[in-house]
Amino acid sequence: MEHSKYGDDFNVGDIYTTAAITVTETHVVNWAGLTMDFYPLHMDKEYAAKTPFGERLVHGPLIFALAVGLVGSAGFAGDSAIAWLGADDMRMLAPVKIGDTVTVKVEVIDKQPTSKPERGIQVWRYTVKNQRDEDVMVFDYKMMFHMRG
Amino acid sequence: MEHSKYGDDFNVGDIYTTAAITVTETHVVNWAGLTMDFYPLHMDKEYAAKTPFGERLVHGPLIFALAVGLVGSAGFAGDSAIAWLGADDMRMLAPVKIGDTVTVKVEVIDKQPTSKPERGIQVWRYTVKNQRDEDVMVFDYKMMFHMRG
Amino acid sequence: MEHSKYGDDFNVGDIYTTAAITVTETHVVNWAGLTMDFYPLHMDKEYAAKTPFGERLVHGPLIFALAVGLVGSAGFAGDSAIAWLGADDMRMLAPVKIGDTVTVKVEVIDKQPTSKPERGIQVWRYTVKNQRDEDVMVFDYKMMFHMRG
Amino acid sequence: MEHSKYGDDFNVGDIYTTAAITVTETHVVNWAGLTMDFYPLHMDKEYAAKTPFGERLVHGPLIFALAVGLVGSAGFAGDSAIAWLGADDMRMLAPVKIGDTVTVKVEVIDKQPTSKPERGIQVWRYTVKNQRDEDVMVFDYKMMFHMRG
Amino acid sequence: MEHSKYGDDFNVGDIYTTAAITVTETHVVNWAGLTMDFYPLHMDKEYAAKTPFGERLVHGPLIFALAVGLVGSAGFAGDSAIAWLGADDMRMLAPVKIGDTVTVKVEVIDKQPTSKPERGIQVWRYTVKNQRDEDVMVFDYKMMFHMRG
Amino acid sequence: MEHSKYGDDFNVGDIYTTAAITVTETHVVNWAGLTMDFYPLHMDKEYAAKTPFGERLVHGPLIFALAVGLVGSAGFAGDSAIAWLGADDMRMLAPVKIGDTVTVKVEVIDKQPTSKPERGIQVWRYTVKNQRDEDVMVFDYKMMFHMRG
Repeated sequence: MEHSKYGDDFNVGDIYTTAAITVTETHVVNWAGLTMDFYPLHMDKEYAAKTPFGERLVHGPLIFALAVGLVGSAGFAGDSAIAWLGADDMRMLAPVKIGDTVTVKVEVIDKQPTSKPERGIQVWRYTVKNQRDEDVMVFDYKMMFHMRG
Repeated sequence: MEHSKYGDDFNVGDIYTTAAITVTETHVVNWAGLTMDFYPLHMDKEYAAKTPFGERLVHGPLIFALAVGLVGSAGFAGDSAIAWLGADDMRMLAPVKIGDTVTVKVEVIDKQPTSKPERGIQVWRYTVKNQRDEDVMVFDYKMMFHMRG
Repeated sequence: MEHSKYGDDFNVGDIYTTAAITVTETHVVNWAGLTMDFYPLHMDKEYAAKTPFGERLVHGPLIFALAVGLVGSAGFAGDSAIAWLGADDMRMLAPVKIGDTVTVKVEVIDKQPTSKPERGIQVWRYTVKNQRDEDVMVFDYKMMFHMRG
Repeated sequence: MEHSKYGDDFNVGDIYTTAAITVTETHVVNWAGLTMDFYPLHMDKEYAAKTPFGERLVHGPLIFALAVGLVGSAGFAGDSAIAWLGADDMRMLAPVKIGDTVTVKVEVIDKQPTSKPERGIQVWRYTVKNQRDEDVMVFDYKMMFHMRG
Repeated sequence: MEHSKYGDDFNVGDIYTTAAITVTETHVVNWAGLTMDFYPLHMDKEYAAKTPFGERLVHGPLIFALAVGLVGSAGFAGDSAIAWLGADDMRMLAPVKIGDTVTVKVEVIDKQPTSKPERGIQVWRYTVKNQRDEDVMVFDYKMMFHMRG
Repeated sequence: MEHSKYGDDFNVGDIYTTAAITVTETHVVNWAGLTMDFYPLHMDKEYAAKTPFGERLVHGPLIFALAVGLVGSAGFAGDSAIAWLGADDMRMLAPVKIGDTVTVKVEVIDKQPTSKPERGIQVWRYTVKNQRDEDVMVFDYKMMFHMRG
């Protein structure tokens, strides 16, 4: 199988930015139902109103998932990725509220060969920003790529 | 606000196990739609049949999200958690296929005070297992808890 | 507001039958997410395999909800209903499995006036049947109707 | 199979309360789609504005379903329930509007043995309340439980 | 199989009108996820605010799909339709915004026999209107019907 | 606002192909719920088994919607499209069954200027193919594009 892109096409320091998406109440309710996370800070307006946040917050892992989707949809990597290996140093940096709009800045931060020349490992840092250009989440996403070998 | 549990109630070495859930085709299709991740390995049976996996795989981040939901639903922590701080050392250890059933083993691995006596930080290791008791994902989940102070 | 039908158009003993719908795994997973009912008999294939049923069952309240929807979609009552008052004597009569197809037989079993001549109360008995014509659920559905007065 | 709880653990007069959930427009639209109930009082803002309610109402059976889910999620019963037998005396007591937040008070009101000592029947009264502590729905939920025998 | 209605029951010039539905943010987000159309004009509040429309618009094909559903739900055609053949001259006439309410006016505009007397082809013109009675979409919907023959 | 692509970048005769997606039972059930189209040929296994098709078919308009989404996700047009104007000559050419995998071949078939030099109209022919390379649907999709002017 020929690939549209290869890990060789990405270099440490490369930066990409994605489209943005508004995180709606629908995202939050559908997320809760799909992932079984009905914590009242996300689902109970009355409870949330009494917290320091004053209103329902978006689930943190939903921000992670949307970041992965925004980067995938942007198509930077074509079909060069073989598998997702994991993530490191994931941190919520600021709360996301219903109606906020998020986008992702991606930076290639590491490239490593494997024992097979046609496979390489890379780490891409995903920084999620809101509509005020504030960083709301950051994590390092580790993937196995097809290499031209 | 009085809490049903406090971070004080958890100690390094404590182990909990959750209920299990079967990851269905519906989970995969709804996840793709919610998170915008339509990578063909998850969504295209014909493509997946030609990969070494031979069939569509479940999105890795969905396993992370289900693990978070299974632990939350188990109610171990009551309403003692204030906020999710992040995750470390997340690794996919084995592919999950449509129809597999996953459960989570949780171990408290770290407890730290903060500058405020009524708040503490803990790290819980989540190990996700399938119906053959194989580890499919592991990650360290970091949370801020209410402490009795 | 003129109405397409009135409670006057229904008489004790009238019988209606609806279209049918196959209850899919998607119905069960979406229902669980929307209503927060992840009981393992519905969601965990491994658990369900060890019960006397041998496989996952459809949530009973989902059968109730589908019955209400099938009757509403059939349009027997036009826009003559003002409000749903409640239900009585709801009983699960047989388990429903994923892939079963259900339909509803409706019988008008009671009609009562109210203190206002333009409003009446009726009770309709809904009997839900599967594709083998077995009764799987029955309940008496109580509604307030517009009357010609 | 050992159970985490048994019917023996519940006594007439016991009272439990659940978490709460805000009923959003997403709940209403997803409910309509899943259950085929598109009655204009729930789905058509223009129609609803002309009714005495003045705005779209939440489907009554959705309140029933959320109550079942809130009680199940609360985990009072562990895995002691074998099957749902039915419900009695279900009544809508007040309309629920989009954005209202509901919680459930549960009271054990009846316990009966069966011909098998390891199985018992119980009736729990579910009273659904909104954020103003008004009762919006009540019903008696009948279940078969594992008994220690 | 006997049919509740036949193509013979419809004549050129017949006009039907459907119920209405409010197009919510939930419709838009669920549509995007199901159909993979995350164009920022529909999904990104910040982007949409800078366009001449000033806010997010509803996906045009969703209006087509809702029109098909509103006509089907209205039940004019009973089970007389065998298959959907296609559509012609579909035009968006005005933007639809989140919160608008749409209804459909249907006019039978063409009837043709086929080589088989028990099958006929008809074209029905669907005109979708909003709550201000403005035409927002029009298309000609072509179906094969059962004929009495 | 600068655009990533312009209508000028597309010429009559240009051909593009998209990724593919498997149309699952989940797509069909979610589509029915979102668009209110519960026609038994799509939703009732027992009914469908008695038709010449022998099993449930995928809703035709869902194929249209997926085609629009596959082309949008492919990103050929960047953000050059201003608005969707409509579609012509849409025809179902073959039934699509649950589990079929569809992809789209796009051909630019017409380009027209408008009275404003910075706007142009184009017609793209979308041919939807299944996993056996059979054409299942075709339609001409008409869009307004940003032109370099």
